[in-house]
Amino acid sequence: MAENKIMLGEDQIPTQWYNILADLPFSMPPVIHPGTGQPIGPEDLAPIFPMALIKQEVSTERYIDIPEEVQDVYKLWRPTPLYRARRWEKALDTPARIYYKWEGVSPPGSHKPNTAVAQAYYNKQEGVKRLTTETGAGQWGSALAFGCNLFGLECKVYMVRVSYHQKPYRRVLMETWGATVVPSPSEDTEFGRKLLAEDPDAPGSLGIAISEAVEDAVSHDDTKYSLGSVLNHVLLHQTITGQETKKQLEIAGDYPDILVGCIGGGSNFAGLFLPFAKDKLEGKTPSLRIICAEPEACPSLTRGPYAYDFGDTAMMTPLLKMYTLGHTFVPPPIHSGGLRYHGMAPIICALYHHKTIEAVALHQNAVFEAAVSFARAEGFVVAPETAHAVKVVMDEALKCKESGEAKVIVFNNSGHGHFDLGAYDAYLSGELKDYKYPEEKIKEALKELPKV
Amino acid sequence: MAENKIMLGEDQIPTQWYNILADLPFSMPPVIHPGTGQPIGPEDLAPIFPMALIKQEVSTERYIDIPEEVQDVYKLWRPTPLYRARRWEKALDTPARIYYKWEGVSPPGSHKPNTAVAQAYYNKQEGVKRLTTETGAGQWGSALAFGCNLFGLECKVYMVRVSYHQKPYRRVLMETWGATVVPSPSEDTEFGRKLLAEDPDAPGSLGIAISEAVEDAVSHDDTKYSLGSVLNHVLLHQTITGQETKKQLEIAGDYPDILVGCIGGGSNFAGLFLPFAKDKLEGKTPSLRIICAEPEACPSLTRGPYAYDFGDTAMMTPLLKMYTLGHTFVPPPIHSGGLRYHGMAPIICALYHHKTIEAVALHQNAVFEAAVSFARAEGFVVAPETAHAVKVVMDEALKCKESGEAKVIVFNNSGHGHFDLGAYDAYLSGELKDYKYPEEKIKEALKELPKV
Repeated sequence: MAENKIMLGEDQIPTQWYNILADLPFSMPPVIHPGTGQPIGPEDLAPIFPMALIKQEVSTERYIDIPEEVQDVYKLWRPTPLYRARRWEKALDTPARIYYKWEGVSPPGSHKPNTAVAQAYYNKQEGVKRLTTETGAGQWGSALAFGCNLFGLECKVYMVRVSYHQKPYRRVLMETWGATVVPSPSEDTEFGRKLLAEDPDAPGSLGIAISEAVEDAVSHDDTKYSLGSVLNHVLLHQTITGQETKKQLEIAGDYPDILVGCIGGGSNFAGLFLPFAKDKLEGKTPSLRIICAEPEACPSLTRGPYAYDFGDTAMMTPLLKMYTLGHTFVPPPIHSGGLRYHGMAPIICALYHHKTIEAVALHQNAVFEAAVSFARAEGFVVAPETAHAVKVVMDEALKCKESGEAKVIVFNNSGHGHFDLGAYDAYLSGELKDYKYPEEKIKEALKELPKV
Repeated sequence: MAENKIMLGEDQIPTQWYNILADLPFSMPPVIHPGTGQPIGPEDLAPIFPMALIKQEVSTERYIDIPEEVQDVYKLWRPTPLYRARRWEKALDTPARIYYKWEGVSPPGSHKPNTAVAQAYYNKQEGVKRLTTETGAGQWGSALAFGCNLFGLECKVYMVRVSYHQKPYRRVLMETWGATVVPSPSEDTEFGRKLLAEDPDAPGSLGIAISEAVEDAVSHDDTKYSLGSVLNHVLLHQTITGQETKKQLEIAGDYPDILVGCIGGGSNFAGLFLPFAKDKLEGKTPSLRIICAEPEACPSLTRGPYAYDFGDTAMMTPLLKMYTLGHTFVPPPIHSGGLRYHGMAPIICALYHHKTIEAVALHQNAVFEAAVSFARAEGFVVAPETAHAVKVVMDEALKCKESGEAKVIVFNNSGHGHFDLGAYDAYLSGELKDYKYPEEKIKEALKELPKV
C-alpha cells in the first residue's frame, strides 16, 4: 500500500504566519467601541492584550515572522502529519482522495496551542505575569495552560460550569501544567457573583466565561486576557497548519477541490483554508470549494444576521461585525462545547458574506455516525467538534461515488476526542439527542443586538 | 534550538521483527504442562492460539518477516518519533542526553497495537472469527479492539471490574471500534459465575480476567485467545520499537548508556531493549545498563522468587518459569493497572536471572512527581505505567548532574495518560497513597506455587 502520511522535517516548519488581511479584495468592517459608536484604536485594547498582538490584529503585512522561541516550541509536535485516508476511502468505496491534517498530536491534543504558545510568548515579552481565559469543553484552556507553563506565566481559566463538572479530566490536564481552574460563573468576579446570586446553579456559557476572564484581566495590573478564536491574530497564528498542508499536498502532487473544517469561533478551519483562499481570491483556483461545518443547534453562519454584536455576554468587549445569534443566546447542550458560541470570526464572516466560502449546519447524531465510520477505518477517534467536518467530508465523498469524480477533499482533523468519549457513549447507546434549530430563543436573543 | 524529533519515513519501518531467542547464550527453561509436569508441545497451545503465533513462540530464527498487511496497518502511526528531551534536560539541569520513543501517537495511545495488529492478522489468516482477551486499565483491550476491527474479527474484552467502573472512557473507546466489553468477573464464564456467587462485588484482577478470556476461547470453536504481554511472540512483535530507535539514534549519532522502561508483563520495555541487548550479549556494549522499573506494590523482579507459576488465577495456563509473586496474589490498587501482574515475561526473567538487565521498584508518589516534571517540560502527559520509567530516568539524569557525566539515557514513552488523569488529580491534590511492599499477602500467595 502506498504512503499514508506525508511528513515534513522540523526544518520545514513555516517561519512566517500568513495574513489574509493583505489580500482581501474588500475592506473589513471596523471594530466599534460600544460607548462611542466609533472605530476603536489600539489604546482601547491595551488593557487586555499586549501591543504586539494588537498590532497583528490590524496588520496588513502579508507575512509575519514567527519568533524563534515560538518556532522552538512548535517543534515539540510540529510539523504535524498530513494523512491520506486510504482506509476510509476504501470503506466509503469512493474515488475521492481524502486527506486530513492531524493536529491531535500536540500535547493538549488539538490545533489550539498554535496560537496559545504565540500569545503566551508575546505577553511574556511585554512583562505580563498572568493570563486569564475562558474555556468550554477545555481544548482552549488546556492549550493556554500548556503555553503559559512553557513561558513561566500564571494561568487562570474560567471553565463553563457544566463542562467543569462533566469533563473533570480536562481540568486535571490544565492543573498538571500548573494552571488554576474555576467553574464559571465563579465567585472570583463581580459578574460571576451577580449571576450566582440570581441562580446558584447557573450552568454558565462561553459568553459568560469570556466576561469573567476579561473582568479579571482589566482589574489586575499584571494580568492580560487571551482569546482562543474569533480574532484576526488568532486566525493568523493558525495559518501554520494551512501552510504546512500546502507543502504536504505539493509533495503528494495534489491540490484540493474541497476544503472542509468545523467552525465554532472559526480559528482551526481558517488556519487551514486561508492560505488556499489566497489562491482563490487571486483567481488561480476559482472552483475551490471551502465548506464550513457548524451545528444545527448553534448555526451562526447559516441562520444568523450579519450584524454588530458583543463577543461576550456581559457586553465588555468591543463590537464585531459578524454572523451572530445574539450575545445573550445560550445554545442547547450539544457535546461539541467548542462550537457553542453565538458569533464567528469576522474574517470568516466577511468571506462568507462575499461568497468565497460556504457553510452547512448539521445534527449531532449524523455527525457521530460519520466519526465512528472514520474511527473504524482510520483508527483515530476525533473530537465532537471535528466530527462535524468528518460528516461533511463523508457526504462529499459519497457524492463522488455517485458521480464517479475523483475529487481531492482535505479537512482539518483539529483534535482527538479522548476527553469526549461520553459523547461517543451516548451516540453508541442510542441516547444522543438532536436539538433542532432553537428559533424562538434566537429570535429573543437577536432583540438584544446593540444598535450601531 | 536543534532538532527535537528524529523522524523516519514510512519506507524505513523495519520489515522484520527481531527474535532474541536466536542470540541468548543460555537456553530458556521449558514451558511445562501443569498436568503432566512435562514440556508442552504446539498441540497443547492450539486451542487458544493460531499456529503461526505458536511457531513464533518457539522460533529461533533471528529475524521474522512482518506480513505486508501488518506493515500497512503500522503505517497508520509508525514510524513513531524519537524525541530528544531538550526542555526536560534543561529543567533538570543535567548534562545527560535524554531520548524517548513516543508510542502515544498510535490510535489506541500506546505501544500495544504493535502486537495486537499482528495477532489479529494471524488469527484472521487461520480462519478465526472472534478473539477474547483481558484488560486492566484498558490499554491492551483497546489495542486489540482496534486490531480486530481492522481485520474484521469480533472482539470480546474481559475488563477488570474495578477499572471497568473507574475508566468508562476506555470501555467506550473499545466499543467505538466495535468490541464487546464486560466487567470481570462476569456472568459469561463458569469461573466468573463462581467468583460472583462467592462475592457479588468482587473487584476482579488481571489474573482472573485472563482465566475468563481463556475459558471463553476454549469453549467456542470459532474463537481464540490473545495475550497482550508476557509471551515470546508478544515481545517479538514489540521489537519494532527498539529497531526503529536504533536507526533514529544512529541518525542522532548516539548510542545509549542506559535504557529504561516500565514493566508489567514486560512487553513495551523488551520491545525497546531487546535489539540493544543483542549488542550487549555479543560483547559489543558491555557497559550498557538496562533498567526495568516496577511498582513497589507489585515487585515481581525485585522481590519474587524465580519459579514455575501459572499465568492466570484459575490455573488454566501452562506453567512459565518467571519471577512471580504467586498467581493468587492480588496487588494493591495502584493507578498503574498495567503493572498489576503477579508474573513477568520469561525472556525478561531469564535475562534478569543472568544479570544482563537490572530492576528497581518505585512508590507511586515519587513516580507522579517525575511525570509532572516531565509534563511541564516536554508537554506530554504520560500513562501512570510509563511514569515509572520517567522516574528512573530522572534519577539517573540527576546522578549525571552530580557526576558531570553526559550519559545517553533512552526510555520507552509507551503511552499517554489521557484516560488516567484521575491518578494525576489524586497526586496533585495530595491524596495519592503509597502502598508498601505487601509482604504478608505475597508470602501467602507464594504458598500456592505449583510443585514442578
